[in-house]
Amino acid sequence: MMSRISFVVFLALTLAVLTGDQPVNSQAAGKTFNGFELVDKTGNIRKPADFRDHYELFGAWMVLDPKGNQMHVTYASPGAAEYYRKNGKFADGTVMVKEISKTDHAQMTTGDAHWATAPIQWFVLIKDEKHRFTNNPLWGDGWGWALFKADTPDKQVATDYKKDCIQCHIPAKSTDWIYVQGYPVLKSK
Amino acid sequence: MMSRISFVVFLALTLAVLTGDQPVNSQAAGKTFNGFELVDKTGNIRKPADFRDHYELFGAWMVLDPKGNQMHVTYASPGAAEYYRKNGKFADGTVMVKEISKTDHAQMTTGDAHWATAPIQWFVLIKDEKHRFTNNPLWGDGWGWALFKADTPDKQVATDYKKDCIQCHIPAKSTDWIYVQGYPVLKSK
Repeated sequence: MMSRISFVVFLALTLAVLTGDQPVNSQAAGKTFNGFELVDKTGNIRKPADFRDHYELFGAWMVLDPKGNQMHVTYASPGAAEYYRKNGKFADGTVMVKEISKTDHAQMTTGDAHWATAPIQWFVLIKDEKHRFTNNPLWGDGWGWALFKADTPDKQVATDYKKDCIQCHIPAKSTDWIYVQGYPVLKSK
Repeated sequence: MMSRISFVVFLALTLAVLTGDQPVNSQAAGKTFNGFELVDKTGNIRKPADFRDHYELFGAWMVLDPKGNQMHVTYASPGAAEYYRKNGKFADGTVMVKEISKTDHAQMTTGDAHWATAPIQWFVLIKDEKHRFTNNPLWGDGWGWALFKADTPDKQVATDYKKDCIQCHIPAKSTDWIYVQGYPVLKSK
């Protein structure tokens, strides 16, 4: 007769096999990179609905501008930083969301503190090592590129990543177009 | 004979019962509040080792100071924001980590951008609805309070939350001592 531990292991293995055709839950696995669940067959990108609750933080940027300060917060899909630290590159399927927000500020107990208020727009990137959508002008240079604005937050509005997106990333070309210096978690957990 | 689906459900339930004495994995469950795993029997608080990889973001504060700008980033244990949105309060066992960092800045394609570099210190809070450690001076007003500094990052150095911690939180007393205005995710995902 099987011991209790063997029985649990048997049940777990059986369950794993029987449910093997289910999508992997990115939270449970912690290291899955299922960004292509956000992409249809022609390469249209959706914004992940749950990034604030379930993504990890890469880092925050405060952009000071007399015409209106902004906070830029970059989230990434679970496991993204750990993979990068181990492999020195972003995993295929990694999703990054950069949320651009208005800010407010006040003299607080910490000093002159500025914080994010209403979102303005979101940039979404999905790492694509396999050049999946060569005919779609929002895919290229190793990424899928997308833009969503707060007035229609689920409508992708970029049309050509070479015009709408990559220009601002050219200074970061040597680090796969990503400003990694602002993301300390890519160096240490 | 059971259908395949019934069999999977049966196996899942059996597995759940048999493994019920295992610690719940906070990532898998997504809604567990196991902050007391960081606390010993007398109330000493450890800093969570994996908050950058596994916690969610509440929000970021940029504190502008001629003597040295700082970025303050507040992380929380998984599920914390979702619980707060549904219940209007922090779940017992919720952990918050506020990471205080030095910053650097540069004129970038976005403008005058400031970002976090080396950590200076971390404040850790654990929500305690049950007044667990009445004789420990780092517990009270509904929270456990802790401070870790970068030179000895795993050594808790606060001695009395009334002297070392809560003074800076008095303006936020009406929102359970937390500056919720800086955490948009507490209002919407």
